[in-house]
Amino acid sequence: MTYQKGDQKNLLVVGTVAIDSVKTPFGEAESVLGGSATYFSVSASYFAGVKLVAVIGKDFPAEYMKVFEKHDINTQGLVRADGQTFRWRGAYGYDLNVAKTLDTQLNVLMQFDPHLDEEQRKTPFVFLGNIDPDLQIKVIKQLKGPKLIALDSMNYWIETKRDSLKKAIEMVDLVVVNEMEARELTGNSSLIKAGRAIRKMGPKTVIIKQGEYGSIALYGEEIFSAPAYPLEDVYDPTGAGDTFAGGVMGYLARRGEISGETIRQAMIVGSALASYNVEAFSLDKLTSLTMHNIVDRYNDIKRLTAFEDFVH
Amino acid sequence: MTYQKGDQKNLLVVGTVAIDSVKTPFGEAESVLGGSATYFSVSASYFAGVKLVAVIGKDFPAEYMKVFEKHDINTQGLVRADGQTFRWRGAYGYDLNVAKTLDTQLNVLMQFDPHLDEEQRKTPFVFLGNIDPDLQIKVIKQLKGPKLIALDSMNYWIETKRDSLKKAIEMVDLVVVNEMEARELTGNSSLIKAGRAIRKMGPKTVIIKQGEYGSIALYGEEIFSAPAYPLEDVYDPTGAGDTFAGGVMGYLARRGEISGETIRQAMIVGSALASYNVEAFSLDKLTSLTMHNIVDRYNDIKRLTAFEDFVH
Repeated sequence: MTYQKGDQKNLLVVGTVAIDSVKTPFGEAESVLGGSATYFSVSASYFAGVKLVAVIGKDFPAEYMKVFEKHDINTQGLVRADGQTFRWRGAYGYDLNVAKTLDTQLNVLMQFDPHLDEEQRKTPFVFLGNIDPDLQIKVIKQLKGPKLIALDSMNYWIETKRDSLKKAIEMVDLVVVNEMEARELTGNSSLIKAGRAIRKMGPKTVIIKQGEYGSIALYGEEIFSAPAYPLEDVYDPTGAGDTFAGGVMGYLARRGEISGETIRQAMIVGSALASYNVEAFSLDKLTSLTMHNIVDRYNDIKRLTAFEDFVH
Repeated sequence: MTYQKGDQKNLLVVGTVAIDSVKTPFGEAESVLGGSATYFSVSASYFAGVKLVAVIGKDFPAEYMKVFEKHDINTQGLVRADGQTFRWRGAYGYDLNVAKTLDTQLNVLMQFDPHLDEEQRKTPFVFLGNIDPDLQIKVIKQLKGPKLIALDSMNYWIETKRDSLKKAIEMVDLVVVNEMEARELTGNSSLIKAGRAIRKMGPKTVIIKQGEYGSIALYGEEIFSAPAYPLEDVYDPTGAGDTFAGGVMGYLARRGEISGETIRQAMIVGSALASYNVEAFSLDKLTSLTMHNIVDRYNDIKRLTAFEDFVH
């Protein structure tokens, strides 16, 4: 069976495109392509037609634009503003679950104020990456008949704009956050209680990312636990969470149907994509995958977690 | 199908029986039954006939002896020595993965020197709990034709008796350690590399416990990832790892066959038992389970991790 790339642009992502400088125990990369919406959209592009809404500066290199072209990502919403592109500099120690931010230059991100055009407003699947929750709300209000809105956030917004963030969460169907964020947002140390507390705010589904341990989803009366694919070496964990989210949303948009079964499959697709992404710096690996690679790893994860029924 | 308790005493455990005092965010328990071999043997008793080899003091309460009786655990190897029983006092904060030891009184444990009788020596399945690796070696040398020897350890022995521990590991089939121990023992931050390094020391199979995240096994060319059952509240994590190991070894001893499939099932049984154990202080919950409870949770874990094949 040959994979046919989604020809409809059915997935909108609003987030950041950045220039990153990253150091890990395995090496370093200077001024490479990064940003939550970048990882998300390249990852999702294996399954869905992606429209990217973000802001870049005058310094954004032409070669990085080619990455979006290569993945057939619609960049009509990628605004080039006066100023420098958002820059992030970070480092990881041997505990690759935690990034240490060394420097953040918001630059053009401070002027980011997304206005969607008619076509963008009608996109059925929407992902609001980690940006100011007031902007997330502004985007939600522009949407026309979305089928699924998902949202990510970070500790900074939980600490500085909790009320706006809670209001945004109320308006979406799916929240994708990491463990620490779920705990900080709800004040619950128990992850299951934290997940349930987020669902009580409004979203039907909550996915909690656990880094190298995988992720869990809470929906309906169920809990799903998706493992991370175990790797010998993680070269650069930057963007793993966004790549995961891109896989989840890309797969859901492709299937067009949101059910327990498609959510579970989507999370395994997300795990597969994230596991490839961390095998190289920046998007070096993520941009060169085939559908065959992704399905292979999906099947590897299936074998990784398979066990037979209880035998007395 | 009615469960028939194993009538053959096919599983030997050598380890500690203790009197614990534990404080968690949910309450505290003073001078309750504890010890690695205690949790292990009660957990394993749901599947196998257990012979317990350990040492207690003159102060060991008769009511705690009844726990072993209730579970039909053979206590011929439970030596009552002159002195006080080994005592441990610990506390957990909201991060229930890490115990803070407040006080350790080794007491009679310092005289522990297990001499197995003929019947004990011939037991096919053997678990060497976390004790001095020199004692572990001494026990191994007394065994006659064991089918499977497994070993647990802790950071203290890695730091103070590394050579002895490595020698002990060389002599066993299965190592069960936690993440930090695997990393410390091998000097590898990558868990998969650490697991492979332990296998290179001799054991065919390595199981690495990851606390609330579950566990992974490395055997043959395969990796298996077993989730922990997600609980709203963990009341007392003491003994979770030993309860898990008891479930693993009990199930393997019952099945009598060691294969990838039985190892996978055994780890899910271990996860199920550990998830019950942490729902109450000491062994309060672990001593009152039915086979029905265990199979129920096994099936819950199956549903927790189930996902369908990839759909294009």
